[in-house]
Amino acid sequence: MMSGAAVEADALNILRSITPTLDLSRHKGQAGKIAVIGGCREYTGAPYFSAISALKIGADLSHVFCTKDAAPVIKSYSPELIVHPVLEESYSVRDEDKRSVSAKVLAEVDKWMERFDCLVVGPGLGRDPFLLDCVTQIMKHARQSNVPIVIDGDGLFLVTNCLDLVSGYPLAILTPNVNEYKRLVQKVLNCEVNDQDGHEQLLSLAKRIGGVTILRKGKSDLISDGETVRSVSIYGSPRRCGGQGDILSGSVAVFASWARQCILAADGRLSMNPTVLGCIAGSALMRKAASLAFEQKRRSTLTGDIIECLGRSLEDICPVS
Amino acid sequence: MMSGAAVEADALNILRSITPTLDLSRHKGQAGKIAVIGGCREYTGAPYFSAISALKIGADLSHVFCTKDAAPVIKSYSPELIVHPVLEESYSVRDEDKRSVSAKVLAEVDKWMERFDCLVVGPGLGRDPFLLDCVTQIMKHARQSNVPIVIDGDGLFLVTNCLDLVSGYPLAILTPNVNEYKRLVQKVLNCEVNDQDGHEQLLSLAKRIGGVTILRKGKSDLISDGETVRSVSIYGSPRRCGGQGDILSGSVAVFASWARQCILAADGRLSMNPTVLGCIAGSALMRKAASLAFEQKRRSTLTGDIIECLGRSLEDICPVS
Repeated sequence: MMSGAAVEADALNILRSITPTLDLSRHKGQAGKIAVIGGCREYTGAPYFSAISALKIGADLSHVFCTKDAAPVIKSYSPELIVHPVLEESYSVRDEDKRSVSAKVLAEVDKWMERFDCLVVGPGLGRDPFLLDCVTQIMKHARQSNVPIVIDGDGLFLVTNCLDLVSGYPLAILTPNVNEYKRLVQKVLNCEVNDQDGHEQLLSLAKRIGGVTILRKGKSDLISDGETVRSVSIYGSPRRCGGQGDILSGSVAVFASWARQCILAADGRLSMNPTVLGCIAGSALMRKAASLAFEQKRRSTLTGDIIECLGRSLEDICPVS
Repeated sequence: MMSGAAVEADALNILRSITPTLDLSRHKGQAGKIAVIGGCREYTGAPYFSAISALKIGADLSHVFCTKDAAPVIKSYSPELIVHPVLEESYSVRDEDKRSVSAKVLAEVDKWMERFDCLVVGPGLGRDPFLLDCVTQIMKHARQSNVPIVIDGDGLFLVTNCLDLVSGYPLAILTPNVNEYKRLVQKVLNCEVNDQDGHEQLLSLAKRIGGVTILRKGKSDLISDGETVRSVSIYGSPRRCGGQGDILSGSVAVFASWARQCILAADGRLSMNPTVLGCIAGSALMRKAASLAFEQKRRSTLTGDIIECLGRSLEDICPVS
């Protein structure tokens, strides 16, 4: 690897190689079952964006685990999602009930855990301490069950303060934006972000957290698992409306699941880490959809407009048969 | 009947022959009044998909009987539905109140029962024991009133564990997917699913449950009432997003009601069991709508997209006048 420049990924071919062929004999669930852990009294849009994006890319089932307040609202955005009102925030739980409530939350999520191909932890999660404690337990169980975890938003806040949650777990994917990346670098590498040697620093960071995969979002997206660094620079849009990171987390979850299925099927086509492949494909699709939406909607482009372009983007890159 | 191959149904002609002609002198309700029993704290999309599909196919009125939590959400999906917040789950009922609550639930549904042309039991029903007890009573009353019942999802869980609910009831229609069919075969026939002789096994299964009609969903849909077996293989889509089974249950409810009206009008055109005819027509329409939606939306096809294609599919197969 040359110093100073990351290798641009062959993103479109990677996307094509991990996307499953559709076939009349398949049945519900085989193209992916995703769960988003997020959604609280304050935030309801983020988990919806993440979960609906997973469906629009081709997952068969998309669940959301959120607080009781958030559930009716997220449900009302779309009947396509399965929304579980199970999380609790401190204001609704008395101190003496915390242990039993926490156990109940965990049991509710555990009932489903084995069925999921990937979790997304963080969209609209908030920072309530009791809620984050419960999510800490959920992540530990996901790890025990070898379920891949994409971590974004407030999930990154949690993980940055408790690196053990993901350290050494090769199925963890972190998707930080500029600020989240800065905090991660300060915490783990004890220094400031160095854009001169951006890809070397990302490589060190991923290695230091024990080989997790990191997708650093930016003008170009940079992806590393501590072994390799790849960039994705194609397409993209200059519009920075909130919520685009949620589309990305849902997309990466689906593509990482598909890449993992290819590897588990041992079909020999893939020689790269499935989480890295998932990040590359998710990044490319998101950038393509954002560029299509921006062509149509210009300055008024919203996250929902980009989601509406996911299907056409996928069909352009990877047409159905 | 030859061993090894089910006879493909003449699905399009059957659909045309049972669909009522529209006529300016008809009044509200004559084209069908359907009720979906389903919708709980966790699931709200499934009953909506089933109930709205019934309307989009041509039913005049579509009701949903669900829990109090689920009702506002299902109402918010569409003002076209009549949503009754009457069911209760264990967590909201004290043990000492269960008998009186159960009686109240039953009375609420009974007020409407005679008006319905068909019930759909199961979409998003969940598995709460108290709720399932109430639904058991509702099914018994429907049967006493000779109201046809389409049973899907968690309704099949209930029925598989209590076959007496439908055994010997010729107006019961079961619509199992791969896993639900497997459980049913294991429970009733005490063996595994045999795909070699799939239609013979289905015939035995339907006969053993006393002549109920079973629609086994798959690459081809297989339908039997214990007397005949028919397959529906036309159209279809390789997309397996969750919720498609709910469209089918709503469709079968409408077509079975229409087929029954034809028989009751004794117009002599139909020589086959109306529940079988309803399954054949519902399956064909669902497969047509799924194929149209898939042509447009490809991998990003969601259940809502298929519902939007029901009207055009029906008009293609069976144009008005």
